[in-house]
Amino acid sequence: MADGKYECIDKKLIHRGAIIDYYQKTMSLPNGKTEIWDAVEHVGAAAVLAVMDDGRLLMVRQYREPLGRELLEIPAGKLDCKGEPFEQAAAREMSEETGYDAGRIEHLLTFYPTVAYSNERIEIYAAFDLKKGQQHLDDDEELNVETWKISDLVKMIRDGEIVDGKTIAAVMIYAAVYLHGEY
Amino acid sequence: MADGKYECIDKKLIHRGAIIDYYQKTMSLPNGKTEIWDAVEHVGAAAVLAVMDDGRLLMVRQYREPLGRELLEIPAGKLDCKGEPFEQAAAREMSEETGYDAGRIEHLLTFYPTVAYSNERIEIYAAFDLKKGQQHLDDDEELNVETWKISDLVKMIRDGEIVDGKTIAAVMIYAAVYLHGEY
Repeated sequence: MADGKYECIDKKLIHRGAIIDYYQKTMSLPNGKTEIWDAVEHVGAAAVLAVMDDGRLLMVRQYREPLGRELLEIPAGKLDCKGEPFEQAAAREMSEETGYDAGRIEHLLTFYPTVAYSNERIEIYAAFDLKKGQQHLDDDEELNVETWKISDLVKMIRDGEIVDGKTIAAVMIYAAVYLHGEY
Repeated sequence: MADGKYECIDKKLIHRGAIIDYYQKTMSLPNGKTEIWDAVEHVGAAAVLAVMDDGRLLMVRQYREPLGRELLEIPAGKLDCKGEPFEQAAAREMSEETGYDAGRIEHLLTFYPTVAYSNERIEIYAAFDLKKGQQHLDDDEELNVETWKISDLVKMIRDGEIVDGKTIAAVMIYAAVYLHGEY
């Protein structure tokens, strides 16, 4: 790296949105120049790869406006507030979205979806010993719960039928670590 | 799903940023209510898992302002303009960032980092038969090129030392498909 460094010399709030806040940062660059950079701030989120006793995974299918269609994803949601423990949010979102509660939750990976311009951080867990409870969706939430074999999910990732980033990462790591005992 | 559907009944540009445009969409929901949703628009991006003849992978280490530190990632960059072929952008970004040109490029996966509020799409490729050329960084770009063994990268994902979403997905799929011949 050169002698210079990256430094934020001004930060201006452009808009406080529903789930993200959008800022402009004035950056002093290593080459001595100044640039305006996008800066999205997000409270953080948790996601869960929920493993049923027969090995199938609980997935949710829901409409995603940016793509204009329904996507198959692992259950996930943002923290209720900054500082909420990620594991607590993971358990809550799984329970609300799928109606299942986890007897045991293990951390699977840390996932930053868009490191170039957003601080969004998603902590992803694997959940086991599931017990059927009651689905409690948010007011604006509508989704279907489905169960899938891991081998089918991996095939759908390869075929471009599953395209959600956190879901791809979670499924591929679970397949490697839990099923094949690798790494 | 219920009888209702999701419908965008108004879309307002809040700000045209450096790499993203930020909109607000007024959505009519299946439950009959109306909500304002964040909508980020992005031109799209391409990323490359570049495999050297000895099996090591070309990685780039660069400063990421949202996390306030340097991250280890696969080479990537956005399309020059809407409609640029993703594969062309992948080859260009690899060449510019690492100084290597690919003799052969294969599609690896389609990755949407943030399906809840952004249309950003990243097409990820694997590149082989690399030939050393010349690094040509963008004016505001400063990064180091490193070579890593796939087993070390997988370990760093598990240990939370690699946290970039597209890098996690690409490395895990490459490990499964190319190294273990699975799926």
